[in-house]
Amino acid sequence: MTIQSLVHTIFHAIIFFYSSQTLADDYNEGKLKSFICAECHGEKGVSALGKYPNLSGQKFEYLVSALTAYRSGLRQSEIMNAMVTNLNDQDIKNLATYYSQQDCN
Amino acid sequence: MTIQSLVHTIFHAIIFFYSSQTLADDYNEGKLKSFICAECHGEKGVSALGKYPNLSGQKFEYLVSALTAYRSGLRQSEIMNAMVTNLNDQDIKNLATYYSQQDCN
Repeated sequence: MTIQSLVHTIFHAIIFFYSSQTLADDYNEGKLKSFICAECHGEKGVSALGKYPNLSGQKFEYLVSALTAYRSGLRQSEIMNAMVTNLNDQDIKNLATYYSQQDCN
Repeated sequence: MTIQSLVHTIFHAIIFFYSSQTLADDYNEGKLKSFICAECHGEKGVSALGKYPNLSGQKFEYLVSALTAYRSGLRQSEIMNAMVTNLNDQDIKNLATYYSQQDCN
């Protein structure tokens, strides 16, 4: 192994470690924050009532866009617009990470 | 068994049979109609791209309300408003029956 390839490997290991940690942080922070969603959408995103969508196993990207649209008012819902008003971009990413990684039933 | 309870049992059997048939019809009609959704949402409601939500295993009532809101324009999406414009209430019910009964992954 040349010095160059060793440096390359170490560099990628650091990036991989950092990415894994970040993703785990997002998940855990999302789980913490999800208590505000749980009353309607269930603790793990399987809602008890038919009028509330399941969130478990939903696409990360879709969840981010739905929450962002509720926050901006592009998507209208009296309940949801109020629920997300104080979420920042990182909160939204965290919640989407948490719900997208739940089993869907 | 009295005549009254026999009549009662037969009456309920007919209602049950009729309901089952109707539900099966809704499912099959929904499956037929779902080809218009499949390009984005996948054949069974598991979408290939993150920006399109999974529909499989989603709540029936939520799916009906989402499609109805897209049709009325209450919920805005250039693609979805166009996709649902020709659906009648029964079509929407059929699609919601089909997708809500799919395994969610």
